Amino acid sequence: MTSDIVLRNLRPMGGDTVDMLIQKGRIIQIAPNLSAPDGLPEEECGGALALPGLVDAHTHLDKTLWGMGWREHQAGPSLREKIDTERRLRREWDIDPHRQSMRQALLSLGHGTTAIRSHVDIDTEVGLAGLEGVMQTAEALSDLIDIETVAFPQSGLMSRPGTAELMNEALRMGADVVGGLDPCGIDADPKGQLDTVFDMAERYGKPIDIHLHEPGELGAFSMEMILDRTQALGMQGRVTISHAFCLGMPDRDRVRDLIARLAELRIDIATVATPSRPVPLAEDLRAAGVTLCAGTDGIRDTWGPYGNGDMLERAMLLGLRNNLRADADVEHAFACCSTNGAAVMGLDGHGLDVGCSADLVLIEAETVTHAVVSHPPRKAVLKAGRIVARNGQSLKEAP
Amino acid sequence: MTSDIVLRNLRPMGGDTVDMLIQKGRIIQIAPNLSAPDGLPEEECGGALALPGLVDAHTHLDKTLWGMGWREHQAGPSLREKIDTERRLRREWDIDPHRQSMRQALLSLGHGTTAIRSHVDIDTEVGLAGLEGVMQTAEALSDLIDIETVAFPQSGLMSRPGTAELMNEALRMGADVVGGLDPCGIDADPKGQLDTVFDMAERYGKPIDIHLHEPGELGAFSMEMILDRTQALGMQGRVTISHAFCLGMPDRDRVRDLIARLAELRIDIATVATPSRPVPLAEDLRAAGVTLCAGTDGIRDTWGPYGNGDMLERAMLLGLRNNLRADADVEHAFACCSTNGAAVMGLDGHGLDVGCSADLVLIEAETVTHAVVSHPPRKAVLKAGRIVARNGQSLKEAP
Repeated sequence: MTSDIVLRNLRPMGGDTVDMLIQKGRIIQIAPNLSAPDGLPEEECGGALALPGLVDAHTHLDKTLWGMGWREHQAGPSLREKIDTERRLRREWDIDPHRQSMRQALLSLGHGTTAIRSHVDIDTEVGLAGLEGVMQTAEALSDLIDIETVAFPQSGLMSRPGTAELMNEALRMGADVVGGLDPCGIDADPKGQLDTVFDMAERYGKPIDIHLHEPGELGAFSMEMILDRTQALGMQGRVTISHAFCLGMPDRDRVRDLIARLAELRIDIATVATPSRPVPLAEDLRAAGVTLCAGTDGIRDTWGPYGNGDMLERAMLLGLRNNLRADADVEHAFACCSTNGAAVMGLDGHGLDVGCSADLVLIEAETVTHAVVSHPPRKAVLKAGRIVARNGQSLKEAP
Repeated sequence: MTSDIVLRNLRPMGGDTVDMLIQKGRIIQIAPNLSAPDGLPEEECGGALALPGLVDAHTHLDKTLWGMGWREHQAGPSLREKIDTERRLRREWDIDPHRQSMRQALLSLGHGTTAIRSHVDIDTEVGLAGLEGVMQTAEALSDLIDIETVAFPQSGLMSRPGTAELMNEALRMGADVVGGLDPCGIDADPKGQLDTVFDMAERYGKPIDIHLHEPGELGAFSMEMILDRTQALGMQGRVTISHAFCLGMPDRDRVRDLIARLAELRIDIATVATPSRPVPLAEDLRAAGVTLCAGTDGIRDTWGPYGNGDMLERAMLLGLRNNLRADADVEHAFACCSTNGAAVMGLDGHGLDVGCSADLVLIEAETVTHAVVSHPPRKAVLKAGRIVARNGQSLKEAP
């Protein structure tokens, strides 16, 4: 469902005040004092800043506890403890993937997120129930938010027999992207996992997005195996590496060489700007021409209590993590949370130019950097020209 | 000015619902269904969580650009460039220390901050005007917020002749704390600066709070000179080191030894949990018994565009920076932003117990950790029993 509307007195990216004509969900004309066809609904924006729709390019819609009351954090510190605790609590707490993904998606929509790439757990316990729930949400919200699913073997792919078959089934069902994680750290079989993942991508014609938490040289080793397969199989421009903590390691010469290969193979990086871990540096990636997108990661789940789905707050965290202070640099942090995510997801016509899809966010701020550092509740959010949220809240209520 | 009031149906620290009788600004009684003296005003809290007043133990009230319209960031990346750019823009932009400190203090009060330690620039250009402005604010807001001033030689102490005389004058005028910074990095004269700072502290009977950005072994060297002087001069319990980035260095054995000496000499650490720099780890300090307090640092000033004065958001940043996930650990991050800051400032009767000063924050949250991660606008803030802010806004308007 799309809409026709005239927006009055908005400032795209903080520029001059203009009007915007939207028809059939697309931006048709941008001009001051625009004379619009009779009978079109009009929205007075009062000089609000207009931004393109925000993009959460790395999250886990199936896992959030949002709206389930406060639950004390239970998991121990290791990655394996978090994974095992999550599988247990999923059973004990009735973390229904459809209901919970609806809640998170609508929470995010209220903050101006109009597209989400969600990893969804596939394992021998939950089977395909998580994916079914999130796909049901994607369908239910298809007019409001673009949701892409990644079939994600959170509990291990090679180390948990039966998972590969479920992943194949998930991709046949319509999962959009092939996921993977820590081929050394979780599976202790990097060749096995990566061959399986790339084979699935080839067989089903899908892109890849691999979680790589492995730090330092271990992560660099796994990353090189991903680089080699991307090159050998002609998967340039179809692979994302999420987290990529190894790019934050102190050996900057080593990192520079890895980044050069990422650029050459057009591999994208997704970050959540984790403040407590080494992370890929935004400026290094930008200088090399590697697309960096960003996400909220898990929001208030069994992994940790943080998060609220606000990608403008994430832009602030990305700016703080990377010590970005100049306005142009903070604008790059914003791009990571919007334009770059749209590029990674391959969204058609994302932006504020004539011809683009009218996915946009109205906010009381003077400039893009001001919007990032202050991130007040969004005045309104439009999806394909339709107003879908006001005052920070989605108009559609969550279950 | 203090007040008498009965608060109905609040949950101190997220515990059971109780009433609270406040008389002459102090908490007199806490009990369910409390029968209060006739004629006392009553406030229905609706089950809100009650927290003790937040404490911003490290900020720069004289520098903020809050309320002055958006200004593009101009400073280059080095510390020296930031310092020099600030001195230039202070002249060009009319950053009036009284007006600006009023704005920031009332912004912070709206978020529940009832006490602030503010470093205030003293140099040969601004002279004592910054201190005069902030002291004027402290006086004007004395019923609303406790403001402590640190005479802070931002542009250098030894390297800028005339500054020591101004510092002496500032301390005679009533600055509460002797400041210093980077005795190697800024003054290139660690012995000179630290002897001068400790001599002032002795002469005027004031505590010390030194900015120490110096990383790694350089910072450890300066820190040891501070430790030695604290010990030699019997200044135990009277010295704070702010930032202390050197405690984030990779050599954990070295750091452990430094922390042991900090504990022995009862030296406090103030952090802003900088996401882009090595920082002292909250858990290491807690384990060793070193008090860690926190602050917002500069808020939207010539140093950078970030910040909003919210110490609950700072607790979240501290939690994220230190990878704190368990509720008890996030509660420690909260303590750093409240109780611990009060201890460092030597505030009398801070807390939610009977007998404490009735400085408290009411917030819609289930638990302390929930309040930290969600930090919604404060429902109300009380100072000495008087309601001074509602819905995130100070009742007293800023200039």
